[in-house]
Amino acid sequence: MARHPPLPARPAPTAPGTDRADRRLSPLAAALPARVPFVGPEALERAAGRPFSARLGANESLFGPSPLAVAAMAEAAGEAWKYGDPEGHDLRVSLAAHHGVAPANIVLGEGIDGLLGYLVRLYAGPGDAVVTSRGAYPTFDYHVAGFGAALHAVPYRDDREDAEALAEAAHRTGAKLVYLANPDNPMGSWQAPGVVSALLDALPRNALLILDEAYAEFAPAGAIPRLDVADTRLVRLRTFSKAYGLAGLRVGYALAHPSVIAGFERVRAHFGVGRVAQAGALAALGDPAHLDRVCRAVDEARGRIAGIAAAHGLHGLPSAANFVTVDCRSDGAFARRLLEALGRRGMFLRMPFVSPEDRCIRVTCAPEADLARFEAALGPALEEVRAAVDEGPARPA
Amino acid sequence: MARHPPLPARPAPTAPGTDRADRRLSPLAAALPARVPFVGPEALERAAGRPFSARLGANESLFGPSPLAVAAMAEAAGEAWKYGDPEGHDLRVSLAAHHGVAPANIVLGEGIDGLLGYLVRLYAGPGDAVVTSRGAYPTFDYHVAGFGAALHAVPYRDDREDAEALAEAAHRTGAKLVYLANPDNPMGSWQAPGVVSALLDALPRNALLILDEAYAEFAPAGAIPRLDVADTRLVRLRTFSKAYGLAGLRVGYALAHPSVIAGFERVRAHFGVGRVAQAGALAALGDPAHLDRVCRAVDEARGRIAGIAAAHGLHGLPSAANFVTVDCRSDGAFARRLLEALGRRGMFLRMPFVSPEDRCIRVTCAPEADLARFEAALGPALEEVRAAVDEGPARPA
Repeated sequence: MARHPPLPARPAPTAPGTDRADRRLSPLAAALPARVPFVGPEALERAAGRPFSARLGANESLFGPSPLAVAAMAEAAGEAWKYGDPEGHDLRVSLAAHHGVAPANIVLGEGIDGLLGYLVRLYAGPGDAVVTSRGAYPTFDYHVAGFGAALHAVPYRDDREDAEALAEAAHRTGAKLVYLANPDNPMGSWQAPGVVSALLDALPRNALLILDEAYAEFAPAGAIPRLDVADTRLVRLRTFSKAYGLAGLRVGYALAHPSVIAGFERVRAHFGVGRVAQAGALAALGDPAHLDRVCRAVDEARGRIAGIAAAHGLHGLPSAANFVTVDCRSDGAFARRLLEALGRRGMFLRMPFVSPEDRCIRVTCAPEADLARFEAALGPALEEVRAAVDEGPARPA
Repeated sequence: MARHPPLPARPAPTAPGTDRADRRLSPLAAALPARVPFVGPEALERAAGRPFSARLGANESLFGPSPLAVAAMAEAAGEAWKYGDPEGHDLRVSLAAHHGVAPANIVLGEGIDGLLGYLVRLYAGPGDAVVTSRGAYPTFDYHVAGFGAALHAVPYRDDREDAEALAEAAHRTGAKLVYLANPDNPMGSWQAPGVVSALLDALPRNALLILDEAYAEFAPAGAIPRLDVADTRLVRLRTFSKAYGLAGLRVGYALAHPSVIAGFERVRAHFGVGRVAQAGALAALGDPAHLDRVCRAVDEARGRIAGIAAAHGLHGLPSAANFVTVDCRSDGAFARRLLEALGRRGMFLRMPFVSPEDRCIRVTCAPEADLARFEAALGPALEEVRAAVDEGPARPA
């Protein structure tokens, strides 16, 4: 049986020739590492010569998009010869109604990834300080490095992003941008009521808080602060990639005061969110019953993953997202070996990048069939890793 | 009957609040105009309260995408919960076979617009010189301004981009990047055999030539230089938005030496080309018969548009693209009035931005039904404008 190669736990170099950099690159571009934030499961499958049997590593929605969205995309496919509306009018109007704000409070973007790039570009010039948590979303760090800003990262505290430490670092460094994900990825944790508003009050006057709410739809009541678009101190990012099951479309949006939203017009790709993508997202937004079903299924799957973990002597951390981060009750080396052992058994998973959070692996919520395959793989994988640990330190594969 | 407002011939400010800039923006971002390269037809339709009856302004393919591409998008819609392969492997392998190059010679991007942004970002730092033609593709200029580089534009010569002037300006300014579209937009002209290679030989040693070949599939034999991906002096840009009829998907690609292609890995949005988009493009590439039919229909439509123009005392310029630029045999003010008069009659059209090319309007090739509507509108629109010109200078609308 073909075996999967070890899963890279960190960004890895990509295409051949990457190391021979073009000498004409600008100094900023030349100084960037030729690394990618994430290796896709398809690349790992190609290397292994066979597909994964469970795709539980990217927090995609294995419960799928709304059938209404699928139908809308199929219909829009015939109109794909037209550019998408650069103003994204219909989707923005619907989103505005959904959130009880005005269309001027919303800008669409090529997923949260795209919006993060625009925000860094707009607010953080070369050398400007940007604050995040160490081991938080690597694509944000990628953009910060990519535009030459200076990244300052504070540790997590008790598996949660530490709002007080973020505020302290923002003052110490004079940060232009502060990043907080709530619920958090990769830990699944969330902020207690009042923490985000306290953080806003504690930030330096000229800082902008980027509140990444990619997983907001999965969070319990009270975990997501009320939306006040009159507050110019923050911009909130939402996506159709997670609860709406449309990661393959690239549609995200920012919610903020119109003066913040207007800034995007200076740099964004106006035709960047295409016609098929806008149609799919609009139809998905119009099917709240599907969203409810997905969120209930995710909640059930969180319990199931925690149960599988407990039955194997591991511990599923409480999660407000569509994944459960499983504490392997050892160190990063152990968790990485477990991830690799699971990968060889056809499980696509990822894990936190830095210590001590890297004692965990991260499991995306999924229908029972996928979780049963995970369950079946976990026991043997753990046995293999525990036996290897008893034998001594890992040798290079 | 609702009347269409005048069509903006130049970039226009967008959302409300745009003029009250956020004071926290970086100096570079703060200095950018809050303008968009193009206003979409949907915005004009919303302002007019009714749809255009012919969408002939954006050089979209009114002949539509391949039915195979439509079917592939519809099928991929059900898989839209998965991120697209960040390496775009299958599409790149197919494109490599199509062009007789290696996958390492190809990078996918969010349309040519996205790839132009990456190229400017990679090669032109703040203040670095970039050379283009005055009145050429405004989205390129938008990116050059957006990254703080210095745009130097040379005039067209005889309705064609002037390769010699581009080379001269590149030497004079020490340009890092030189932009040439072949076939050209907005004029539809193309470069004689040998001109592009002579331009490459004439450029400064450290300049990179961006050869925008968005319209290459429509060009006559001999207009498109042979592809030599061993040549590190140029990067060629292609798209699925024009001949393949997939403008609404946002898929373009760059063809170049691997050392140039590798640079994109430093800054690109690795998940930016989504799953549905990759599936549609791959299927479109697999239907060369459809592409042939489209190119033949475009050629026929070019003749038809030229005929309509001639019958009304105007002159359709020779075109290697899927549009005909029609010389209105007067000045920019006249052509702009004609564009507006046609807009009021339900025709979505655009025109060149600068003199003397702005004596023209630009008509996208389309099926006969659309061109018949254009023909029906042209006579009365011309009559109206000629009468107004006889009366004296235009008053503000």
